[in-house]
Amino acid sequence: MYYHDKRLQYPVRVETPDPLFARQLQQAIGGVEGEIRVCLQYFFQAWGARGPHTKYRDMLLHTATEEIGHIEMLATAVAMNLETAPLTLQESAAEANPVVNAVMGGERPRHVVEGMLQRHLLSTGLAAMPTNADGVPFDCSHVYASGNLAADMYANVTAEATGRTLAVRLYNAAHDPGMKDMLSFLVARDTMHQQQWLAAIEELGGAAALPIPNSFDQAMERQDFSYVFLGTDVTGAPPPEGRYTAGPSMDGKGQFSVLQNTPLGEVPVLGPAREGSGAQAEQIGKPAGR
Amino acid sequence: MYYHDKRLQYPVRVETPDPLFARQLQQAIGGVEGEIRVCLQYFFQAWGARGPHTKYRDMLLHTATEEIGHIEMLATAVAMNLETAPLTLQESAAEANPVVNAVMGGERPRHVVEGMLQRHLLSTGLAAMPTNADGVPFDCSHVYASGNLAADMYANVTAEATGRTLAVRLYNAAHDPGMKDMLSFLVARDTMHQQQWLAAIEELGGAAALPIPNSFDQAMERQDFSYVFLGTDVTGAPPPEGRYTAGPSMDGKGQFSVLQNTPLGEVPVLGPAREGSGAQAEQIGKPAGR
Amino acid sequence: MYYHDKRLQYPVRVETPDPLFARQLQQAIGGVEGEIRVCLQYFFQAWGARGPHTKYRDMLLHTATEEIGHIEMLATAVAMNLETAPLTLQESAAEANPVVNAVMGGERPRHVVEGMLQRHLLSTGLAAMPTNADGVPFDCSHVYASGNLAADMYANVTAEATGRTLAVRLYNAAHDPGMKDMLSFLVARDTMHQQQWLAAIEELGGAAALPIPNSFDQAMERQDFSYVFLGTDVTGAPPPEGRYTAGPSMDGKGQFSVLQNTPLGEVPVLGPAREGSGAQAEQIGKPAGR
Amino acid sequence: MYYHDKRLQYPVRVETPDPLFARQLQQAIGGVEGEIRVCLQYFFQAWGARGPHTKYRDMLLHTATEEIGHIEMLATAVAMNLETAPLTLQESAAEANPVVNAVMGGERPRHVVEGMLQRHLLSTGLAAMPTNADGVPFDCSHVYASGNLAADMYANVTAEATGRTLAVRLYNAAHDPGMKDMLSFLVARDTMHQQQWLAAIEELGGAAALPIPNSFDQAMERQDFSYVFLGTDVTGAPPPEGRYTAGPSMDGKGQFSVLQNTPLGEVPVLGPAREGSGAQAEQIGKPAGR
Amino acid sequence: MYYHDKRLQYPVRVETPDPLFARQLQQAIGGVEGEIRVCLQYFFQAWGARGPHTKYRDMLLHTATEEIGHIEMLATAVAMNLETAPLTLQESAAEANPVVNAVMGGERPRHVVEGMLQRHLLSTGLAAMPTNADGVPFDCSHVYASGNLAADMYANVTAEATGRTLAVRLYNAAHDPGMKDMLSFLVARDTMHQQQWLAAIEELGGAAALPIPNSFDQAMERQDFSYVFLGTDVTGAPPPEGRYTAGPSMDGKGQFSVLQNTPLGEVPVLGPAREGSGAQAEQIGKPAGR
Amino acid sequence: MYYHDKRLQYPVRVETPDPLFARQLQQAIGGVEGEIRVCLQYFFQAWGARGPHTKYRDMLLHTATEEIGHIEMLATAVAMNLETAPLTLQESAAEANPVVNAVMGGERPRHVVEGMLQRHLLSTGLAAMPTNADGVPFDCSHVYASGNLAADMYANVTAEATGRTLAVRLYNAAHDPGMKDMLSFLVARDTMHQQQWLAAIEELGGAAALPIPNSFDQAMERQDFSYVFLGTDVTGAPPPEGRYTAGPSMDGKGQFSVLQNTPLGEVPVLGPAREGSGAQAEQIGKPAGR
Repeated sequence: MYYHDKRLQYPVRVETPDPLFARQLQQAIGGVEGEIRVCLQYFFQAWGARGPHTKYRDMLLHTATEEIGHIEMLATAVAMNLETAPLTLQESAAEANPVVNAVMGGERPRHVVEGMLQRHLLSTGLAAMPTNADGVPFDCSHVYASGNLAADMYANVTAEATGRTLAVRLYNAAHDPGMKDMLSFLVARDTMHQQQWLAAIEELGGAAALPIPNSFDQAMERQDFSYVFLGTDVTGAPPPEGRYTAGPSMDGKGQFSVLQNTPLGEVPVLGPAREGSGAQAEQIGKPAGR
Repeated sequence: MYYHDKRLQYPVRVETPDPLFARQLQQAIGGVEGEIRVCLQYFFQAWGARGPHTKYRDMLLHTATEEIGHIEMLATAVAMNLETAPLTLQESAAEANPVVNAVMGGERPRHVVEGMLQRHLLSTGLAAMPTNADGVPFDCSHVYASGNLAADMYANVTAEATGRTLAVRLYNAAHDPGMKDMLSFLVARDTMHQQQWLAAIEELGGAAALPIPNSFDQAMERQDFSYVFLGTDVTGAPPPEGRYTAGPSMDGKGQFSVLQNTPLGEVPVLGPAREGSGAQAEQIGKPAGR
Repeated sequence: MYYHDKRLQYPVRVETPDPLFARQLQQAIGGVEGEIRVCLQYFFQAWGARGPHTKYRDMLLHTATEEIGHIEMLATAVAMNLETAPLTLQESAAEANPVVNAVMGGERPRHVVEGMLQRHLLSTGLAAMPTNADGVPFDCSHVYASGNLAADMYANVTAEATGRTLAVRLYNAAHDPGMKDMLSFLVARDTMHQQQWLAAIEELGGAAALPIPNSFDQAMERQDFSYVFLGTDVTGAPPPEGRYTAGPSMDGKGQFSVLQNTPLGEVPVLGPAREGSGAQAEQIGKPAGR
Repeated sequence: MYYHDKRLQYPVRVETPDPLFARQLQQAIGGVEGEIRVCLQYFFQAWGARGPHTKYRDMLLHTATEEIGHIEMLATAVAMNLETAPLTLQESAAEANPVVNAVMGGERPRHVVEGMLQRHLLSTGLAAMPTNADGVPFDCSHVYASGNLAADMYANVTAEATGRTLAVRLYNAAHDPGMKDMLSFLVARDTMHQQQWLAAIEELGGAAALPIPNSFDQAMERQDFSYVFLGTDVTGAPPPEGRYTAGPSMDGKGQFSVLQNTPLGEVPVLGPAREGSGAQAEQIGKPAGR
Repeated sequence: MYYHDKRLQYPVRVETPDPLFARQLQQAIGGVEGEIRVCLQYFFQAWGARGPHTKYRDMLLHTATEEIGHIEMLATAVAMNLETAPLTLQESAAEANPVVNAVMGGERPRHVVEGMLQRHLLSTGLAAMPTNADGVPFDCSHVYASGNLAADMYANVTAEATGRTLAVRLYNAAHDPGMKDMLSFLVARDTMHQQQWLAAIEELGGAAALPIPNSFDQAMERQDFSYVFLGTDVTGAPPPEGRYTAGPSMDGKGQFSVLQNTPLGEVPVLGPAREGSGAQAEQIGKPAGR
Repeated sequence: MYYHDKRLQYPVRVETPDPLFARQLQQAIGGVEGEIRVCLQYFFQAWGARGPHTKYRDMLLHTATEEIGHIEMLATAVAMNLETAPLTLQESAAEANPVVNAVMGGERPRHVVEGMLQRHLLSTGLAAMPTNADGVPFDCSHVYASGNLAADMYANVTAEATGRTLAVRLYNAAHDPGMKDMLSFLVARDTMHQQQWLAAIEELGGAAALPIPNSFDQAMERQDFSYVFLGTDVTGAPPPEGRYTAGPSMDGKGQFSVLQNTPLGEVPVLGPAREGSGAQAEQIGKPAGR
């Protein structure tokens, strides 16, 4: 179970509220690279963790719990960036509003609204929401918790790699010193979290523990295709040489090679449509309308 | 641009059609671990590839093109497994149908229908569709193409790790020798594809090239938090020791340590609700109804 | 604006309630081939109808309004089919319930529940919901109203063609005489609606009015590709002969021909990744970590 | 920010694992009536709370944090109910597996699988996921945080009313004493949470503070329609009498009355389709193909 | 079944078309606070209404039918606001178009397009669509019809409370007198509908009929937790005092109290991963690769 | 199976990159009228094709394969249009960047960003993604493959009719000569594809083969309603005369007529709510709280 502290994990300050930056920050809340995703992903991995390694369950709970605080920081930052957003499209009314006139150095209010998520105005009362920067709600199909510990650790590296890439892009786009400061912290945490999941992968055996899942007897797979790069260039040209075209495989269990892909199967033949299946009569091979 | 061959990449045979297995195979077509996802993911990564490394664009095109053929094999397998599915809930009619009676060793037709995706009966004429095994359509938010090559390679490892885990589970669930044979091939291809993306990561510098993105000057992040595991256990108990709690970091640029998480920020204070923002009068600090 | 009559457009009777058939009927309510879709599609086409042909706006309103009544009939049918659904998984409790024991000729209650949409039990109190037969909610991206009258009419033919196919499949699956009677009416209405939209297409000029939109000067398209079937078989084998491989085109404005597809473009070259774009340093061509 | 305790808020015990009940429990995790929804809803309301009433922000944080623990309990219960789920469709293999044979008192394994969410087998390694009981992922558009405190409190009452209804249905469906015990606790918490939000509404003025939002001057609305029940029965029959057809309105600001709805507007006339808008030529009033 | 009148329920006039306001109006059509939602919600509640109170079924049909007319008014308003929207990004072409030059007092056409929903230009021919103001299609999971009459009435109050809040925000944002007039009517109808559902709740017993559902014997819930506010502040600080922290509960069946949340359960222990479940070998406790 | 050629099907050139046009092009990639949709639709129709007419399977494979190349062209065009997009909201930094200053003839960078899909900046590194022009990801429920050949052909006509309408709108909006050239090719291909599916419909019997599906004996439908236009105007006014109100039906099997819609059914009566179904006690007809 869980507890809260009303204070934030790290200070959130905004000197010059910017509704467009509020929109961009939404990607870090409800985007697929964002914090709701990692928070729920680490929680569901922890809650479903099976096996003797309860240490990973414990570790996941620590970090999942930290991530709630990151959503909180970002949601606070969005609300602060929206504080002076125009509420009207009427130029005259807006001009009469000194708060709005201060928005973004004299920008016309109408233009500010054009760049906003309209739901920030219409649905939230100038606050954050669990959507991405283009207004698409987060959907939980992005919560990866496969029941395979190694697969999950790679999913977590991916989440933090795309997450830090996003945080860096936001840092570069930002102009407010408070926002840059907040993002410098979040970038650092993403650095650690990348390291953390990679360290767990090393503990689990690293490359030698591949392929994932390692509980399947490789004698049951078609091993003549397990380390072969299949080329599909219509001219038969192989791919440019790479670590994956020759030499020992990463797991040390095979040798990479290259082969042009060719059909091993035949043209598939499905049975005809069945009586009563709603197909056209021609597909069934019967007279129409009977 | 692209070409097709009417033959399949690998033979697809079904001796005993099983509508429930058709349902399970859908996960490998339209599930987040499935083939539509990797196919589109590799294509979009290729089509958006920037930078001098055109070799990765080329490589991605080879493998993306191979994946179309995997969707094709699985779609064929689903259609074959549905060939004898009951079309009616009427026991008597079904009993009179020798095709249906042959389904799954005397199973009552009604029970067979209960375990099916209803849209296999009602929407497709007994064929595959781009949904997962519980009927949820694939949505393309799962196509990861971040513009960061290293992040994308980890996303690809993840896709193939969860993909091979799925293929192994399907292999274990399958009872038809044709299906086991087809899956033994797909498992092998997933083995190779895991290797391939990890090989690309090694080429790109491996752990030494971390953190992702490596084009951001780490001096700009709060480096005192870049290699620190933050604990959130309310008792202050640190996580069990692991590779990530002490010792050199994976990228060789820091030392792991553990710290109990504490608030560095204050209780956030948002501005009051603004006049005209649709809040309750109390939130604005004005009399109601004015 | 709109009015209602509490009576149904056509009688809905269920002699033997069947929760599995209730599930199947959901496809006709909230499936992409279903009635919510056509209802909203015709309404949005009507509400956005532009141009001198107000007759189509009028016609669409008639039929859209009829479709509300079809959703109502189907929703009623779902509720009636759910009336005796088991509420518990406990065999003993269920056995003690004569209502439940009457379900589907002695079927074990637990099996009945296995084939149900669980939300029929858990979310609706045994009533219809706006989802398809596998529980996926209808989403309004399926409402086609393109602003092009001819395109919309074809969209409507499609909706009624897949709709009647679905209604026929439900008729074939049904065992209850009341349900068969209701579906015989809905199938007939789908017959008419197919006819109706095709009649409108004829009025709009039929094939001679193609291509859609006919307000674009064809001199501005690459007309050397306007009536050419492009083959993509890697062997260069053309498609089997058909109406579309030779002879006059359907619109009478060209001659069909067949050509093997070949690249007219070059290998695309994108600019390198830009500084600050979050790519790997290698993609930008700068040292890492700066 | 947040902390965790590894122990559960309330004991979770399962004597007889049941994969079908695991499926039903998913509705309480990822359904619209479920715990992810209330958890995120209360958090986003707290994080966006504006106005002098910081007490509501504080209150919301307490309860949102409690709800994380409810998701955790339910996720644990799902994993426990899946422990003996069959992994194969092969009857013979299943028969040889004593664990599987113990499932649900001799049920054939194949039948057990038919009633399961397939992703419990294929995607999670027998653990919970953030979807509803029919496999649809939770999407965060269901997080209501409107910026209007009173509207949000009613949204919370609704969430807990549908939530307790769901919990009661699960209690009734359950057969395991451990599950009944856990649900008796969750039902009680939903009782409290209904009370809590209604108490907040009373504090905010109750009915006298209506309509929501109360910051809009009612002189600006068409008050002749503010307390009128508009009838749409085509026969002109009014609705059966109710508290809402006559007498003082709930807010004490008007008198209820009943009126038959009639059009106050005219037939709408939109402008013709514009040149270049992609309509048919007839809609634009120009010759085709120009 | 249903009938239509070609005239609108209330006049819709637009003097100065504004594509940005067209975008904002979409929230009232296809947003979660919008009219499609309430329309379908009231219909599905009516069509599934069970029990002796047929009066509520009747009442719901009246209001659901009214709501169709509201969607129609708003869709008409969107089309009218789009009438002069630029169709091109070419400044020169736009400058040559006097209609476009009249848009919004000399605004550059390109800027107008930047603030639009692109699908208004590209997908609809300048008409309304069933999406929200950020382009997300309405999805019917938002249709609440729980089978519990009281829960549904609260859901309806919520819908009309957020709906009126939205209508007020649109009124405040609007600059066109025709639009303000139309919205003054819709705001009034939302006032009535809030009243109507609250009146129904009073009829059903009001607070005394709580908790919802009232058909569950409260002796079966853990009543020691039914009226207790559980605090989760890590410092143990209780929430600020409120109506919900002490005194009689709203339903008169208990006394509110406050308690610090503490774990009553233990650390959960799941069984190990099973052979064949696709986990890593370590999770199963077997050697890798077997 | 499939092969690729690294060259594009048709040249893609961009002289003046325009991030707003990049956004508009997304509709042709991931919109419901776009190329991912037709590509997957034709593939799934081919892979599920049943019946003696293998020629249609073959034809579908040719065209589906061509469509992959169209997605590729458009994705390339999006990336090229994004090449000079601003990465920052900081006016000063942007002004110092000559690349950005060249954007769209002196446009302020901030304005350019306001009109962009934010995910083009934040999620893709300036490349295409599988979403529509308002950022909504493509979801595969739009892949129509009904198992009925004629219904599918109409679905394909619809897809190409809305697709060509979209391509024409993009052509009209475009200002870059390279983009106009690319679109002139895509418009031409849509012309052909409309023709192709209509030619297939003619081969399948055209109007005489209606209604779809033609494998259902029309004697089983309520034929007295099969060719009747049902009017729903509350005044009883019939629709304006049209091809569908009188004369022979399109399929030559009936005569069109017009009839005012009237209820043939009665007011529906559902059974009362059941004990244990979670309804209010009043709905069950029992005392509350028992």
